[in-house]
Amino acid sequence: MNSTSPTIIESPGAVARPAVCPRIGIIGGGQLAKMTAVSARQLGCDVSLIEKSADCPAAPLASTALTGDWNDPDELLKLAVVVDYLTLENEFVDAHALARLEDAGHALYPSSKSIGLVQDKLIQKQTLSAAGLPMPQFRSVTNRTEIETIAADFGWPLVLKARRNAYDGKGNATLNGVADIDAAWDKLDGDNRDLYVEAFCPFTMELAIMVTRSRTGETATYPVVESIQKDHICHIVRAPAAIPQELQDAARDFAIRAVEAIDGTGTIGVEMFLTDNNEILLNEMAPRVHNSGHYTIEACDCSQFENHVRAVLGWPLGSSQMKTPAAVMVNLLGEGSGSGTPHGIDKALEIPGTHVHIYGKSESRPGRKMGHLTVTADDLGTAESLATRAAGLIQFGD
Amino acid sequence: MNSTSPTIIESPGAVARPAVCPRIGIIGGGQLAKMTAVSARQLGCDVSLIEKSADCPAAPLASTALTGDWNDPDELLKLAVVVDYLTLENEFVDAHALARLEDAGHALYPSSKSIGLVQDKLIQKQTLSAAGLPMPQFRSVTNRTEIETIAADFGWPLVLKARRNAYDGKGNATLNGVADIDAAWDKLDGDNRDLYVEAFCPFTMELAIMVTRSRTGETATYPVVESIQKDHICHIVRAPAAIPQELQDAARDFAIRAVEAIDGTGTIGVEMFLTDNNEILLNEMAPRVHNSGHYTIEACDCSQFENHVRAVLGWPLGSSQMKTPAAVMVNLLGEGSGSGTPHGIDKALEIPGTHVHIYGKSESRPGRKMGHLTVTADDLGTAESLATRAAGLIQFGD
Repeated sequence: MNSTSPTIIESPGAVARPAVCPRIGIIGGGQLAKMTAVSARQLGCDVSLIEKSADCPAAPLASTALTGDWNDPDELLKLAVVVDYLTLENEFVDAHALARLEDAGHALYPSSKSIGLVQDKLIQKQTLSAAGLPMPQFRSVTNRTEIETIAADFGWPLVLKARRNAYDGKGNATLNGVADIDAAWDKLDGDNRDLYVEAFCPFTMELAIMVTRSRTGETATYPVVESIQKDHICHIVRAPAAIPQELQDAARDFAIRAVEAIDGTGTIGVEMFLTDNNEILLNEMAPRVHNSGHYTIEACDCSQFENHVRAVLGWPLGSSQMKTPAAVMVNLLGEGSGSGTPHGIDKALEIPGTHVHIYGKSESRPGRKMGHLTVTADDLGTAESLATRAAGLIQFGD
Repeated sequence: MNSTSPTIIESPGAVARPAVCPRIGIIGGGQLAKMTAVSARQLGCDVSLIEKSADCPAAPLASTALTGDWNDPDELLKLAVVVDYLTLENEFVDAHALARLEDAGHALYPSSKSIGLVQDKLIQKQTLSAAGLPMPQFRSVTNRTEIETIAADFGWPLVLKARRNAYDGKGNATLNGVADIDAAWDKLDGDNRDLYVEAFCPFTMELAIMVTRSRTGETATYPVVESIQKDHICHIVRAPAAIPQELQDAARDFAIRAVEAIDGTGTIGVEMFLTDNNEILLNEMAPRVHNSGHYTIEACDCSQFENHVRAVLGWPLGSSQMKTPAAVMVNLLGEGSGSGTPHGIDKALEIPGTHVHIYGKSESRPGRKMGHLTVTADDLGTAESLATRAAGLIQFGD
């Protein structure tokens, strides 16, 4: 029995642990990195990361957590040298910085080329359109007056969008006519930022699919889900989407073609619109694990996160089939600004089938994703009724 | 965008993260602590631990990992002061040391009293027998000649057992007659160690049940499973056990009564024998998450680990029901001494329904638990055939 005095191991992961399994480095340290890290740890992998702030959800699961600007290739290289495989939790990391990692011989999945085809949404649309995938009309725009010309072709309403660094509706503005142009242009800072225009898609449902494509080429496709947005933020996900089999098949086919068009690796989210005449149109894709796939943790045989890790390592993929008839995920968003302390988890867990995930963010802000919960049940209606009830019981703040 | 130079955060968890959720301290840092930590992190909790060695499976998931002798109350107190709730992953921590934590006002689940009733196996047997639970005959023994007297009462064979700090068959010796007494007594160091004697139980099946009992008193009972030992180490777990409903009901009833007899809290493993005349006899219990409950991660709605965390926090328990018809768990044991690097995970994952857990131990030793895998399937036969095939493909070493 060792009876030496206790000492605090300053970095439990980094100091004393020889790596016995592949070491994975995640660019980013948010909730997506956290849930990926859990899967990686289960498989015995070591996990390190780089994030702008030390106080991020994934840091407590990382052996080494670097703080720094992940658009600076020199900072990315500091992560690269302590891991065997690099991956990322967002598509905003500059593709040229990522290419520097590959040039230095580091293994990065997805590749800088895939990221480069996605992170500029105009290039993404052009790439997917060139692959023959149907989507709302779109066009580059460099000044306000061009928008009127586009409206003459596409008709109103139009959606003005930022080409880069936009998510959760940030960087989008809907224009119902000429009178809206100036305000939208100014809101999106069009004089200093690259924008493009899309035809507004009068959808009846927003659909999403997670696809995992291994670096070996093996591909797993998760069920088609329905995603319900509130204020442009994913609010509820219904799995599976209540749509006919032929639409599910078509959506899966589109998703696979979209992933192949960017030569994507890892888990990739593909968002689509279902129109009122049952057409499926591509909306956009995210080359990473995705909010619309969180339900896979409890509802599928192998989650989007574990399959992402397997794909990065080149290991065989697990089954993406659902093992429960229905699952509904609800995001837990911050309401006010202040402490991130959650309340009401105990009340929410009284509701049968409720699985609560709290990301551990120390500060809440309006609309900030603080956690999510998933309810599995025998049918979608029951799952959604329970899930929304449970979510309503959880708040963040002091 | 923050473009300061990157700095290594020496202790990603401890330095910068204000606790927004309950902080859980685990006494022990092995694989049971690791899997508990994953569930705690999912629920947003912070996790710290104390272990004898810094190189332990759970350390990379801990915000603070103390090294020290967890039988020394002063060292335990150093963990206690940085957490809100204490729990443990083994029953060998001295109950008097644990009582010091409670005396100082710290919340410990299970209590020192429960641990004290279990960690000395003779006291455990006396406690469970006093509660009316059926078990093989047992008796205290203080010298070699008493064993002959006991044999006259119980008959041969007998099992000589150490009262404390024995697991995985360490500290057990089977005696087939008088001639075996000396060797067994010497092997177990009977002159210096407290021993007791049990009648050998001619069982046809070893059964186990996990019970989670919250500090609120709420109780969840997992399905009865069959546990197959090899060289006294849990080798395979079949869930559910292929026994008639009335035996399942009886086993559950015994397990709940056993947990109540020690006033246990948290997840507790209860091991039983099924005799050839369909009697169920209690073998022993472990007041902690247990190897025979690892299958619950993939096969049950809420795992033994998540329910343990909920029980410690006093939060409502999740459903212990299986969500797949069958699951088989196989332990991945070290064969030789040397590096703990796993090989063949990629081959094992080719087998459908296989979920691999690698604990991340840097050194392998013969019989050391290096990981486990669980296969879920529509029937036990299929699950076991796939699981043993997958397990056979994984080895540890350089």
